[in-house]
Parts: sequence; C-alpha cells; structure tokens
Amino acid sequence: MDDERKNTERKFNLKILENNKGVSPVKLIPIGGLNEIGKNMTVLEYKNDIMIIDCGLSFPEDEMFGIDIVIPDFSYLIKNKDKVRGMILTHGHEDHIGATPYLLKELNIPIYGTKLTLGLVENKLKEHGIKGKLNTITAGQHVKLGEFKIEPIRTTHSIADAICLAIETPAGVIFHTGDFKIDYTPVDGEPIDFQRLAELGKKGVLLMLADSTNAERKGYTPSEKTVGVALENIFRGSESRILTATFSSNVHRVQRIVDTAVMFGRKVAISGRSMVNVVNLAIELGYLKIPENVLVDINKTKNIPDRELVIVTTGSQGEPMSALARMASGDHKAVQIKKGDMVILSSSPVPGNEKTVSNVVNKLFEKGADVIYSDIADIHVSGHACSEELKLMQSLIKPKFFMPVHGEYRHLKQHAFIAETLGKPKENIFILKNGQVLHLTKDSVVMSKEEVPASAVLVDGLGVGDVGNIVLRDRKLLSESGLIIVVAAIDKASGMICSGPDIISRGFVYVRENEDLMNSAKMAVSARLDKCYGEGLRDWAGLKNAVKDELKNFIYEKTKRSPVILPIFLEV
Amino acid sequence: MDDERKNTERKFNLKILENNKGVSPVKLIPIGGLNEIGKNMTVLEYKNDIMIIDCGLSFPEDEMFGIDIVIPDFSYLIKNKDKVRGMILTHGHEDHIGATPYLLKELNIPIYGTKLTLGLVENKLKEHGIKGKLNTITAGQHVKLGEFKIEPIRTTHSIADAICLAIETPAGVIFHTGDFKIDYTPVDGEPIDFQRLAELGKKGVLLMLADSTNAERKGYTPSEKTVGVALENIFRGSESRILTATFSSNVHRVQRIVDTAVMFGRKVAISGRSMVNVVNLAIELGYLKIPENVLVDINKTKNIPDRELVIVTTGSQGEPMSALARMASGDHKAVQIKKGDMVILSSSPVPGNEKTVSNVVNKLFEKGADVIYSDIADIHVSGHACSEELKLMQSLIKPKFFMPVHGEYRHLKQHAFIAETLGKPKENIFILKNGQVLHLTKDSVVMSKEEVPASAVLVDGLGVGDVGNIVLRDRKLLSESGLIIVVAAIDKASGMICSGPDIISRGFVYVRENEDLMNSAKMAVSARLDKCYGEGLRDWAGLKNAVKDELKNFIYEKTKRSPVILPIFLEV
Repeated sequence: MDDERKNTERKFNLKILENNKGVSPVKLIPIGGLNEIGKNMTVLEYKNDIMIIDCGLSFPEDEMFGIDIVIPDFSYLIKNKDKVRGMILTHGHEDHIGATPYLLKELNIPIYGTKLTLGLVENKLKEHGIKGKLNTITAGQHVKLGEFKIEPIRTTHSIADAICLAIETPAGVIFHTGDFKIDYTPVDGEPIDFQRLAELGKKGVLLMLADSTNAERKGYTPSEKTVGVALENIFRGSESRILTATFSSNVHRVQRIVDTAVMFGRKVAISGRSMVNVVNLAIELGYLKIPENVLVDINKTKNIPDRELVIVTTGSQGEPMSALARMASGDHKAVQIKKGDMVILSSSPVPGNEKTVSNVVNKLFEKGADVIYSDIADIHVSGHACSEELKLMQSLIKPKFFMPVHGEYRHLKQHAFIAETLGKPKENIFILKNGQVLHLTKDSVVMSKEEVPASAVLVDGLGVGDVGNIVLRDRKLLSESGLIIVVAAIDKASGMICSGPDIISRGFVYVRENEDLMNSAKMAVSARLDKCYGEGLRDWAGLKNAVKDELKNFIYEKTKRSPVILPIFLEV
Repeated sequence: MDDERKNTERKFNLKILENNKGVSPVKLIPIGGLNEIGKNMTVLEYKNDIMIIDCGLSFPEDEMFGIDIVIPDFSYLIKNKDKVRGMILTHGHEDHIGATPYLLKELNIPIYGTKLTLGLVENKLKEHGIKGKLNTITAGQHVKLGEFKIEPIRTTHSIADAICLAIETPAGVIFHTGDFKIDYTPVDGEPIDFQRLAELGKKGVLLMLADSTNAERKGYTPSEKTVGVALENIFRGSESRILTATFSSNVHRVQRIVDTAVMFGRKVAISGRSMVNVVNLAIELGYLKIPENVLVDINKTKNIPDRELVIVTTGSQGEPMSALARMASGDHKAVQIKKGDMVILSSSPVPGNEKTVSNVVNKLFEKGADVIYSDIADIHVSGHACSEELKLMQSLIKPKFFMPVHGEYRHLKQHAFIAETLGKPKENIFILKNGQVLHLTKDSVVMSKEEVPASAVLVDGLGVGDVGNIVLRDRKLLSESGLIIVVAAIDKASGMICSGPDIISRGFVYVRENEDLMNSAKMAVSARLDKCYGEGLRDWAGLKNAVKDELKNFIYEKTKRSPVILPIFLEV
C-alpha cells in the first residue's frame, strides 16, 4: 500500500469509527479459503449470534508428508460455541463440505443445505459414525439463524443444486456467490436466478464475496452443454468400448454421459467407490435419471459387445488408488484395458496433479487405448466463472464493498483488479487473509485489528492437529536421506560402553552393497567415543553429541548426504 | 498391436532378415529420452564403432525421495568401451548434456559440439574436476566417428547454437532433429538451414528421429521475436523497477531483455549463480552482446532509480533456492521486492513445477509487486515444434522410416499419429522403449529382439546408482508416518531383557504432547515381551517380530497410522 492511499484510508476509517460509536458491527471472518484453493469457511457474527457458511477441506501440499487432509481451524467457533446458531452449505464439493464431520465432533449445530448437498454430507457423516441435524432447504426458502436471515438463490456450478446466498444482517445485505459459473444452458434446465440477483442489486447490497478461482482467465467458461456436443461426436464415430472418467460429484456430467450412451444404444457400468456412492445417491434423490435396463453391473460387462458399453469411472485426477489408475496399471478386477478401448478423461488436472494424470494417460496409451483428454478435445468445462462472468456478477449485484474469496493471492488480486476496471474504488475492495476480521455497519466496511486463529489443521489418520512443524520437518529430513541409528549399552557403574556401538540404517543406502561404508562408519564412531572417554567425558548428552557430530561429518564427506542421525544409549 | 498387423509385420521382417543374411546391421539404441522428458541419449553402433548422441539428465519424480538427478544407464557403453569413438552434443540444455561428467568418469571419449554447447559442458566438467577432450565444431563441418560421418546442421531452439544431425551410416542416412522449433525470425538472425534439409530429403533419408515434446500442441510455436514485442510493450509503459526471470540457458531471451533495457535507457544487473555463469560465458564466446556501461553489479543497484534498472534473474520455475524465490521470501541479500516492482516470469512452468511457480507468484503479489506471467501475457514461447512444424520437418526430410523421440509415451504416440496423417505407413514408424534396439540395413529398419540395460540411474550426493528400490521405499514409508524405534538390552546369559524396552520416535507424533500414547505403547510392548518370555520364546527374530506386530497393531488402532517400526536389541 502506498503512503497516500494509507493516509486516505486511515482518515476514512477514523471518520467511520466516529460515526459508528456505540454501534455493534457485524463481523465477517474468513476462517479458510483465502490465499489457498480449498477449506472454504466463512463466519458471520453479530452480538450473540454466529452463523457459518461452508466447512471445506483442502488437500495437503507437497511438503505436508503423510497428511491425509487439511481442515480449517475451529478454535474461534469452539471458544464461542454458545453463540453458533448453525451452518449453511452452498454446495456439495469437498472444499465446501469436507470438514463438516470434524466440526460436528466439536459442535453439534444444525446444518442447512439443498437436497443433494445434504445427501453428500450425510454419506460423509455416516463414515464418521455421526448423526447430524440436517435441514433440507430449496432456493427461495429463507433460513433464520439468530439475527441473520439467509435467502438461498439458485446458481450454476459443476455440481447440481448449488446455491448462492443473500444474507440480511443488521448492517445490510451480504451477498456470497458460493462457487459459480454463468451457464445459460445447464443440464438440468435451471439457470442462475438472474431476476432475483438483479432485484438484490437494485435494493442495495452492502458487501459481496465472490468466487475468484478463474479470475485469471479471460472471457467466458463454456456451458456444460458444449461437453455434451463433444461427447456425442466422439460416441457417434466409435465402435469401441468407451470409458469415461470424471469427478463423481459432477452429476450433470454423469447425466450427459448416460444420455449420450442411451442415444447410441449403449449400456452403462459404474466403477469406483465414490462414483458408485454418488450415482446411487443422485438416482435416489432424483438428480440423475437413468432409463431402466441401462445400468449394468461392472462385474458383468464381459459379454456386452464393446460398441454397446460405456464405463463411467473415477480417477480423472490420476489418483493412484482410483479405479482408472488401477485399470491403467492392470490391477483392476473387473476391467482390463485392451487395444482399441476409448478412454475419455472428462476433466482437467487440478494444479499439482499434472504428473499423476500424465502417468495414467501414458499407461493407457501403452496398453493400446485411445485416450482423449482436455488438451486435445473439448470434453471438459470448468465450474468457475471467468473474467467476463465475474464482471456480469459485479454488475448485477452492484455491491458497495467487495471481497474476493476462494483463491490464491494471485486470483484474489486479479479479481480485485477486475472490480477496479468496473469503477469500484480501491478502498472499497478488501483482500483479506484467513483469520482477519471485517467490521460491517450500515455505512461502512472496515478492516479491524482483531484477528482470530485460522491456521491449517492437519489430519493424519485419527490425529487432528497433532502433526506440527517438528514432526513434518522430521518426515522431510527422513525422506531425503533416511536415517542412521547408533545404539550402545552403557554400564551404570563405570559409565563405559559395554555393548555396541552398533549402526543401523533405513532409507540411507542398501546396506548389503555398502558394508565397507557402514563398517568404516562404525569404526569412526568407536574411535571418537574412545577419544571422549580418554578425555574423561562421561555425560550422555556430551557423548551423544560427539557421536552425532563424528558420524555426520564422516557420512557427508563420504557420500555428500545428510541422513538423520540418532544416537541411542541404554543403561544396563 | 492387432493380429493382422502383427502377421504382416512378421512376414515383412522375415523377408528382410532373409535378404540381409550376412549383412551387419547398423544398430540404433535409445539409452534415454523415450517415455520420459529428459536424459536424452542415443547410441549408434556398426561393427566395431559406437557413437553417442547427447548425454542428458532428468529431474527426479515425486517418489524419488532425496534423489538429486537421474542419469542414463551407461553399462552398455562401459561393456563396449573399446568401440566408443566419441559423442556429439546437439545443444547445451541439461537434458542433453547434464550427465556428461558422469559418463566421462567412466569413458574419457572425445566430445564434439558447437561453441556455446561445449562452453556449458566445460563449466560442468570443471565443477566435477574433470578435463574433457572437447572439440568445437560449426554447422556444416563434418565429423567422422569410425564408420559414422556426421554433418551438423543449423537449427533453432530455445538455446543458441543448436544443431540437428545428418549421419551417414553404412545402412543409409539417419537424421536426428535434436530439440527444435521452426523460427523464421530467430534473435541471432540464423534460421534453420531449410536448403540443406531439403537437399537431404531429396537424396534420401533412411530414418528420422524427431523431437516429440510439443506433438500434442496444434499449430505453430511463435517466434522468439514475439517475446521481444511483448517485452517492449511492457517496458514502454513502465516507470517501475523491472525484474525478469527466465532460464539462464536461454541466451537469446536474455539478449532480448538486454536489448529492450538498452532501448529504454535502463541498466541491467544479473542475479543467480547459473545466470551469472551463463551470461559471462555467453559474453566471452560472443553469443551475448551487451553495450558498455549497461551491466551493473547486483549489489550496487540501490542508487539506480527504479525506472532505469532491469534485474535479470534465475528462478522462473520457482525453485526454492533460486534468486527469485529468495527475493519473494525476503531472503535475498541484494534485492528486496517492494511495492510497484514489476516482475516478469518469462517462462512456462515445466510440468510438475506449477505449484512452486504459483507459490512464488503469490509471494511476489503479496509483497506488492505486479507480476506478469505467461498465463496473462505473451512473454514466453516454447522451444519445441508444434504439430504443423513437425509436419514441415517430415515433409522436408521425407524419411523412409520414422522414430519419434524426446517425450512421454503420449507425445511419441501423438507424433506417430501426425506422421500417419501425412501418409507414412504404420509399419514404418517405430515407437521404442529405452534399451530396445533397431537394426538398420540399406532397405530396412526392423526391431530386434536384443535389449540393452537402460534403466534410470539415480544420483544422490556422491552416490551414483546406490539408491535402489528398497532405499526409496524406506524413504517413502518414513516420510508418511515417521518411525518408532524399540530398543532393549538383552542379557547374554539369561536371554532376558536387562534394560528397556525404550521407545523413541521421529516424524510420528510430537512426543511432548503425546506422552500418554507413547507410555501406553511402551507398556503394550513390555506386556507382549513378558508373554513371549512366559511362553519360553528366546530367539531374537521371534521376539523382534512379536514386538513389531504388537506395536504396529497398537499404533494403528490408536492413530490409524503406520510408522516404520524398528526393534533393536543389544546383547550385554
């Protein structure tokens, strides 16, 4: 921030604080979803009421060794548990609902969401053995959580039944887009409710929070319908067995694939645990319509002619344990890839997954399949709005203040820039960090000095938050050069070594092929210990440090590697 | 391969073998560069002569924990060392020259290459303390290596002084494109030698090996000149300090940046070890022309007004230790990023580097810099030919047989498909795996049943090839959940434990916060040992297995984690 702007802002804020003396502000607190893709969670607070929007997870970064998932920090909510009136979920993607079971273990609050969203949440809670207070709502059906009155509004995204939220608060209306794209021709025929959005814009919105995922992309995201056209063209020309991989949550995409299969007289088999779960749920809830006699058991496809079969599977991100990855490696029980199979990856690699996806593509090609992926055909569209759609949303809602959400800093920054090009003053745009607090009153939105805990909470197995920086650092060091353990027994009476030192290693070198090195290392350690004893050193810490030091230098000189070195003494 | 094609091929091959009875074939052996990006190396053999094309390295895959680089398997060359007449290098990129020092440690053969290529090799050899027999050649200057007569021909790529090779062999001419793009307006004014390529095509080429890196991309790669135009536009509108990051080896790009700086009256400072090295070398060899008084010391830029300075730095791939990454983290001695700085990433993320690049972009934005990257401006072009250029190359050379090289399987496959669309019969196209051997005679190219070792050789510190699957598996396991060591001293006479068991862990949980867990684990192990002793068990292997088993189950039940468990017994 340049000085001039800082000053203007300071004056502006001071003036507002003066005007608002004695007025309780509405507080808006992003717990997750800023400067990151994932673990979206936003908290609204007014006096004695707190409401929550979404409760997502994110996937571990490369350096988070051994971590399964990452969830938001719930400590502010736990501290204020008596205030929390409930949570509303915008849609059923993992980055918006995935941490719900962990939250419910702490706070058993009521949860509101549309039918498909809650269906997916319920599956999740079952896995954790939790029963939640789930309340199904539909677009237009208002929900009151304390002083907050929430209106869910129909929107379009890469999952069915997504909503955006207009929230009446004592300070004014807060509009949250949720994740969205503007699809004029969605698969379910239910486009975004432009009329209601325009009405809100006319009445006046204090603050808008909007999805920034695709803010760097120019133009428009194409309609889901274009994927249908591309699929039709591929199916029309093909006599092969067709395998399609996509996100299981993308029920519309699955519907498109099924429709196209039916159009060309093909049966459909479903593969992959999450795909089976979501398809069953979506059929049950009426989001997926499959004519009778189209679905076949994945284990009974052998006798179906290739040209009459489509397999719908998970694994579009190359996940090593997914159905498609197992097929590509020849490890799938029911499906063996064969020459001439047509595999369609109806997805784009999520950043960070490029290599795993590429591995699967290569293996499929090597097995003789034809592989079609988004680089070479239009068989995927994003679920997020590009720059022109973001402009449309700004222009419909016309918020006084704007806060870009859901994105890395680069995306938030770009989204802010888009708002600026539409004439929004810089000082009305807020790029926050997780845990920072906005104060909203009738006339103003200001950044407060308050901050709440909002770090990444790492989940490893059953442990939530018990893997910290020290453990991660150790895992990183162990992964780089392994470890060497020096173990010795020390006689209690004399303080001298009575057995050992022995040297054991893991992940360092293959010992059988490096016996000389390990023997020399042992000799170096023994010699150093003798020297220490000769000098009268007896305390364990000193001896251990000497061993560590000796071995570290010896190993580095011989190998230019730095394994973790762990001296262990036993008193006997 | 379908049966029909297999049969045709078999008959065809049998016929050829009959015709060629008693004729020694020329053997072509790809040692690296197939089904991978990197470690390019191709071997040609005829009777008593072997020649080598390129000797590159590749970077480790995600699962290759702790590995620094990966090099080709030299064992076939070492076994046949008396035959090896020399090596020719097509250009100076790491994936074509990077493994040279490792090869020279085994075989001190003469090396041929253009001036810049050998300059880069010489720097590399110096670091390893090796003196090589380096022979500078220019395009058009023939080299004879045994029965092979090599003609280097000028080509264009993202490094200066790149060549392609026409190799006269007893079986006919083999043409190797090296890495290339077709740049009609290269920075040095030296386009690809179309006339010579066309001449070769007219005379007849038996086999072409061609770069497949961009085979999936349609159309043409734009000329390096377009980057110059984009840079000019950015410089023209800017009053800021400008930082540009690019590959140090891309001397033409650096020249463009320097030229643009000069055009707008800016000084240039160089940052990053490899950038400094390459710039110095390129100036010395005449590949980079910088007017007097333009270069300034990176440590003396403080007093230069922002609008008069350009910093050229490494780190365009977000490498954590690079100059740009250190600037972004605030860890660079000479350069602090400040609000208003303009940072240009003149590069694209290499697949796998997307996240590290993104991290650096985010940090730069957070420090207030404007960041321009290839997603949002045309400030980078690839060095590799897209589909239309590949077609042009096929049409100029008109080889009888074709072998796509340099690429993952998906790229090779796509390149083969491009050749097919130009009418090349499938049976004249060879997609090989590293280590497979082609036999070439005057009329034929056939795949032989011979195979030579061509695995990935992992370099970790000073160790070449000593880290194998067992060590890597251990590093992976250690990285996922750390390890737990159970140590005990056992009395020689009684066979009973006389000290311990003690439990020590690393990378598992933070012990201070999990003392209860660790104490319970210790008790579980002790109880199990008592039970074993009670049952009369004394042998160490049996006791260790019992401890391992007990602890594994105990820990998994409590934490759902599977650390490496290592029981160590000492006899006293």
